[in-house]
Amino acid sequence: MAKAPQRLAKRTYQARARVLREQLVQLQQDLRHVPFKVLLILAGPEGAGRGNLLNTLAEWLDPRGVETFSYHSPTDNERAHPHQWRFWRSLPAMGRIGLYAGSWYTETLREEARSQRALSHVAEEAGRIREFEHLLADGGTLIVKVWLDLSQEAQGRRLRTLRAEPATAWRVTKEDWHHHRIYDRLARTAELIRRQTDRPGARWTLIDAEDERTRDLAVGRLLLTQFHAQKKRITLLGHATRPRVQRSLRPSGLKRLNALPLDQDLSEKDYDALREKWLGRLNRAVRTALAAERSIVFAFEGWDAAGKGGAIRRLTSAIDPRDYTVIPVAKPTAEEKHAHYLWRFWRDIPRDGRMTIFDRSWYGRVLVERIEGFCREDEWKGAFGEINGFERELTDHGTIVLKYWLHISHAEQLRRFREREAAPHKSHKMNAEDWRNRRQRGAYEIAVGDMLALTDRKNAPWYLVAADNKRFARLEVLRTASRAIEAALED
Amino acid sequence: MAKAPQRLAKRTYQARARVLREQLVQLQQDLRHVPFKVLLILAGPEGAGRGNLLNTLAEWLDPRGVETFSYHSPTDNERAHPHQWRFWRSLPAMGRIGLYAGSWYTETLREEARSQRALSHVAEEAGRIREFEHLLADGGTLIVKVWLDLSQEAQGRRLRTLRAEPATAWRVTKEDWHHHRIYDRLARTAELIRRQTDRPGARWTLIDAEDERTRDLAVGRLLLTQFHAQKKRITLLGHATRPRVQRSLRPSGLKRLNALPLDQDLSEKDYDALREKWLGRLNRAVRTALAAERSIVFAFEGWDAAGKGGAIRRLTSAIDPRDYTVIPVAKPTAEEKHAHYLWRFWRDIPRDGRMTIFDRSWYGRVLVERIEGFCREDEWKGAFGEINGFERELTDHGTIVLKYWLHISHAEQLRRFREREAAPHKSHKMNAEDWRNRRQRGAYEIAVGDMLALTDRKNAPWYLVAADNKRFARLEVLRTASRAIEAALED
Repeated sequence: MAKAPQRLAKRTYQARARVLREQLVQLQQDLRHVPFKVLLILAGPEGAGRGNLLNTLAEWLDPRGVETFSYHSPTDNERAHPHQWRFWRSLPAMGRIGLYAGSWYTETLREEARSQRALSHVAEEAGRIREFEHLLADGGTLIVKVWLDLSQEAQGRRLRTLRAEPATAWRVTKEDWHHHRIYDRLARTAELIRRQTDRPGARWTLIDAEDERTRDLAVGRLLLTQFHAQKKRITLLGHATRPRVQRSLRPSGLKRLNALPLDQDLSEKDYDALREKWLGRLNRAVRTALAAERSIVFAFEGWDAAGKGGAIRRLTSAIDPRDYTVIPVAKPTAEEKHAHYLWRFWRDIPRDGRMTIFDRSWYGRVLVERIEGFCREDEWKGAFGEINGFERELTDHGTIVLKYWLHISHAEQLRRFREREAAPHKSHKMNAEDWRNRRQRGAYEIAVGDMLALTDRKNAPWYLVAADNKRFARLEVLRTASRAIEAALED
Repeated sequence: MAKAPQRLAKRTYQARARVLREQLVQLQQDLRHVPFKVLLILAGPEGAGRGNLLNTLAEWLDPRGVETFSYHSPTDNERAHPHQWRFWRSLPAMGRIGLYAGSWYTETLREEARSQRALSHVAEEAGRIREFEHLLADGGTLIVKVWLDLSQEAQGRRLRTLRAEPATAWRVTKEDWHHHRIYDRLARTAELIRRQTDRPGARWTLIDAEDERTRDLAVGRLLLTQFHAQKKRITLLGHATRPRVQRSLRPSGLKRLNALPLDQDLSEKDYDALREKWLGRLNRAVRTALAAERSIVFAFEGWDAAGKGGAIRRLTSAIDPRDYTVIPVAKPTAEEKHAHYLWRFWRDIPRDGRMTIFDRSWYGRVLVERIEGFCREDEWKGAFGEINGFERELTDHGTIVLKYWLHISHAEQLRRFREREAAPHKSHKMNAEDWRNRRQRGAYEIAVGDMLALTDRKNAPWYLVAADNKRFARLEVLRTASRAIEAALED
């Protein structure tokens, strides 16, 4: 049996730790001024000392800038949401460091210890993780992933030493010994996962965990180095620049938009007669879906003054107030602006058996943010794929996703703007921005067209609604929503 | 059968609504500058139109300043927390209006509809609600409670009219008819609850709901009136003033504090031997408690530099990182400052089977806030009772609550302050405030004494730990915590 390697002398350790601690606290101060999120993910075999390392880091860092995360097997509530939900909603706040003793890797690795699974299954989970980390990294989050490496031999040595002392024997569980026996298999799977999730912005670093002191210093230093690299990267990336000309990526969408006849008619009398009928049908469809533990997500987009609010209120008048939430999407807060743009929407994704209606949505990324240059070109171009992935994640879970574009003519918009400005009780709905947006109708039409062409998917279709006639639009929303929900239940 | 009363003419309604809408939007703007939370609770029998009213208010108000709440029967996750938790965590943000179509009253009233219960049981629930609303109102929240009154006759008329039309028949459910039949009993219970929860700061207003238009205008006006009264009240209350002299409310606590011998000794060798033994015992106790779906809350308080952080890290070194969270309690954020001081602690209360360790706690209210005059005298004096109520709510649910005061001498504190200032890697732990607090030792001793005397309860006891010797203190925490958790499991 090989001897344990020499430990780093206590004195040397203390001297180095002192320097490192100063630098880490400095890092935390910097993080307040160039704010991004930092995730430090600690993984590794039993005995590698994740818990101890966590305690050391808690001692070194200023606790006010640290949040610690860990995940159990999903709770009922977490199971009632799409897989990624619990990770999205528990990220650290801006400018803070999240320490993950357990992470999205933990369950995958523990599953493997319980029973060997097909490699394809593991690869599939790795794929999901890759996607998730890609989104985070894209949003400016620094992800530092540490694999605490411990040989089977060293693991055995550690377990036996602990067991030998009555005072420490409690630290060694049956599970530890089981993991020790299947060390090779677990190590192979872990390596596979690491390889498949080692991507720019979310790299793995192997750190030898045999000597605690060397290990702790190495992790602290890694955090420092990667932090400084990220700070530089973010500064280099620079800011978004306003695009000079808007060009269609996919003209078919614009054609579809322009082909919609807006002169639909519907008299008040006909509307009154049909409204209750369709409200009833929608009510039945929604009740059936929610009772079957499906969840429903509506995203309402449309021109300013297209009547989104009114359409939503007609829709909700058929639903039990306890079953739905309306989320009005305003400009992002400072916190949200710094996070990945999908983050704030993840928070409000409904659990099974509930419904969320977004009044404006994640499509702001490819509409206002594209037009106004609030994000870089590569960012909004990348968003089409990300959004499709996001909605796929929802529908894979069983969520019914319905997206509406309420379309009005340029002339009708002008009429409504003027009406709003004239009525004191509606004037708060108007501001200079509305007029500015209006002047950019052409650019927006191109963006809306691309959105329709690139994100109209079978699992999450767009409904394009002619809204010059408010009654027609409201009824059309009720009709299409009822039918779509009924169809989703038949699948 | 009596005839339906005259409806308010549409024209009159529209004219009045226009004025009201302007005033409401103005209210929302004011709310940004004198920020407090506004809760509008809508309750009443079936057919009184809570859903419709909600839609009207959503149309009248600027949606960016509104959040809508509603509660189903508690989910598993909610059941795994103390009763009030779900209400505390879902309050609207500062300066916003929360609309409650369902509230803490809903479950109580629905229970009653399912099966008649003893009046004493209903009274008990009303008592809990009263306590909760009292805390909110005390924290400056405006609670507007509306009972939509509808006679049995009017209810029957409405249900029959809806049923008669094929298009609207779906709106009437079997449950509605059941509630209609037992109208008298439900009305009696509702009246009892209203009477028992009609308190200053949380008054009920009855509004006749028979005519929708009159009803909507009345609710809007009520919101306006109560908002302006609250604004005036908050301005009148004024600010906290610094108390001139600190006087013990209950000198027995101060005596107990001063009687603690601080010169405890424990050699490094003895400590090393005993530490693992007690860590093991704590580990077993915690694992047993969590496996039995009990939750554990630790609150650590003590002088600056008393070693709270170190004691917590020793404690957590025995616990699976996935089982606990450490919450460092810093100064409240702007948002938290405006909310009830217990609010932010409610958010972090663990679910069953988990543990939360608060590094500083809700006792800040009767310590720093009392000494520095951050709150009014009536506020900190009232806090002792509120805190006892809060902890009682936790322990009633089955949570084990352990509170620690780490006590060091004035001389030992000075030694540690100087040591911290001399070590660059620790200097971030010191600031001017620490020195200021130190100069107020006498005042703090009085406050700590009162805290010990007034909040040391059998269900949530204080452990007073001599901490001049760090090793002794850490061991003492392990020992007392292990024993307390074991004892709680035997109950």
